[in-house]
Amino acid sequence: MKTPVQLSHASRLLNHGPTVIVSTVHEGRRNLMAAAWSMPVEFTPPRIAVVIDKSTYTREQIAHTGTLALNIPCRALADLTFTVGSISGRNDPMPEEDKFERYGIKSFSGAVLGLPLVEDCIAWMECRVISEPHAEQTYDTFFVEAVSALSDTRVFANGRWDMNDSNRPLHTIHHLGAGLFAVASDPVQGKILSDQ
Amino acid sequence: MKTPVQLSHASRLLNHGPTVIVSTVHEGRRNLMAAAWSMPVEFTPPRIAVVIDKSTYTREQIAHTGTLALNIPCRALADLTFTVGSISGRNDPMPEEDKFERYGIKSFSGAVLGLPLVEDCIAWMECRVISEPHAEQTYDTFFVEAVSALSDTRVFANGRWDMNDSNRPLHTIHHLGAGLFAVASDPVQGKILSDQ
Repeated sequence: MKTPVQLSHASRLLNHGPTVIVSTVHEGRRNLMAAAWSMPVEFTPPRIAVVIDKSTYTREQIAHTGTLALNIPCRALADLTFTVGSISGRNDPMPEEDKFERYGIKSFSGAVLGLPLVEDCIAWMECRVISEPHAEQTYDTFFVEAVSALSDTRVFANGRWDMNDSNRPLHTIHHLGAGLFAVASDPVQGKILSDQ
Repeated sequence: MKTPVQLSHASRLLNHGPTVIVSTVHEGRRNLMAAAWSMPVEFTPPRIAVVIDKSTYTREQIAHTGTLALNIPCRALADLTFTVGSISGRNDPMPEEDKFERYGIKSFSGAVLGLPLVEDCIAWMECRVISEPHAEQTYDTFFVEAVSALSDTRVFANGRWDMNDSNRPLHTIHHLGAGLFAVASDPVQGKILSDQ
């Protein structure tokens, strides 16, 4: 079940470094790309940095709209994530053959910005770009602020991830390279060491 | 066994979003802190963004030296990582009772910058800070460039991670919050989907 995530908890969705899918729409034309490189930079307000290469169609779309959505895929979506990260949407005819249509990816609309969100992901954020031309140009780094957030309660609820043996297909994936993803699992609780 | 990592492969160490330990030294006084928020921003040159809060002693040290090391801890170091992330080194008497001494953390010196590296981690990078006062001030985000990199060949060799059933204590950890770490495991290979 999808449920809203408090904005003060939105950065927690990315705290452990999962790969994300960035979704955008401009003038009715949608796109998707995978992004392994993102991180929170603040809890309140919920701000995130994400690297979007100059060569991508997603970047062209963001330049027009100043908005993007971050969708968090899970183990069951490893093929989809690798695919949308490997093939550019720039040459798709518009709009009836975008990547959503081509690969049969179901979507729904974000509540605040109306961005296309990937139905089978496990968490979602709609974000506005904070204009930082120098970081964008020099490091391909976009600073964004989440304005809506949702999670699949089977794996993230009440501000916490719960990845356990019973929901393995819903665990987050973490791109090692060349389409190989480590899967988050088996949480371990750190304890404070005593002085020597 | 520790072996050098080609600098063009250094960003791969962080591609999948592990939590890191930042180590610094200034005027003979060393420090350590955990940082869940880091990401590569470029492969060549190997550049990384890492969030270091204004309240930290690490940040004071970096302001003086312009250098830091990123140490990648593993499952076996969850307690150590949580501990150095929970307790400030600012009030330690210097230098014989820093966090290394207090918790019995063995170290060795980085080859290029001489930074203190955590012996029992699984990968290490010495980095120079690229001065970006606006990003540092506004987002606590430091852009750094790796000038040396090493890995433990039991888990990262020839530019690739190999986290499998036989080396579980060496898997990377990914901070979910409050000292709970997801552990990277069970890699899944994504495949390119066919068109619908």
